Amino acid sequence: MSDLDIRPAVLDDIPAIVAMLADDPLGAQRETLEDLTPYTAAFERLSKDPNQIQAIAVREDRVVGTLQLTIIPGLSRRGSNRSIIEGVRIHADERGSGLGTRLMQWAVDESRRQNCQLVQLTSDASRTDARRFYERLGFEASHVGFKLQL
Amino acid sequence: MSDLDIRPAVLDDIPAIVAMLADDPLGAQRETLEDLTPYTAAFERLSKDPNQIQAIAVREDRVVGTLQLTIIPGLSRRGSNRSIIEGVRIHADERGSGLGTRLMQWAVDESRRQNCQLVQLTSDASRTDARRFYERLGFEASHVGFKLQL
Repeated sequence: MSDLDIRPAVLDDIPAIVAMLADDPLGAQRETLEDLTPYTAAFERLSKDPNQIQAIAVREDRVVGTLQLTIIPGLSRRGSNRSIIEGVRIHADERGSGLGTRLMQWAVDESRRQNCQLVQLTSDASRTDARRFYERLGFEASHVGFKLQL
Repeated sequence: MSDLDIRPAVLDDIPAIVAMLADDPLGAQRETLEDLTPYTAAFERLSKDPNQIQAIAVREDRVVGTLQLTIIPGLSRRGSNRSIIEGVRIHADERGSGLGTRLMQWAVDESRRQNCQLVQLTSDASRTDARRFYERLGFEASHVGFKLQL
């Protein structure tokens, strides 16, 4: 396969990112492709925050993967930074190609570069394939993830 | 009981916060009270980030509870903000007094005020009391929480 580039997203990448967020069993119920205004507004907020990276994987000028990486400074664990990964999506054409692993390794490397001592994420308990994927990458399923909708 | 004040921490509150982080079955292995330098350095990083609040609960000039609230802008869920709660600690003298509930309700109200549509947190699977506590507050244990130590 041709070379892969992993880099922060720019505004022009939003349609491709949102299409991947929606092309997912859970995301299909939560996203709308008709009107991208709320997504572009959110991207502007996100871009102003130096602790946020909306990363994309690009192959032959196509956006084929994305995730959001957040760096969180904190007092716990002797004042450690931690990072949180959200919204990992791989384009349907690229699933099973190892791209997910490369994108996650990029996020782990970037977390290390930003002095994080812990990388964390939550995955819906219904995503059993995702659990195996994260465990293969060395993540430990040690926690219960709680959500409260407002 | 006398009145409770919930407010963002200042530098002088750090010793009391760190003492609570350490007075915990898991925290006892992770924190050090001898040298607060890494904690004060972390607090300075945290204070510069407008999306972070290290909240404390104060009763009669004593710090009796703490949590960290992080606001995360994002593309998922039609460009929703979400918040993440970390490091919830209640002073040993105040456990069972309802203070944890009040502190969490403060975090949920603040999340709503900052236009979050989701509040999330993870809790170590060994903390069975914590699970009941969060479920009573309306949180759903729908996710698996993964951690990777760097």
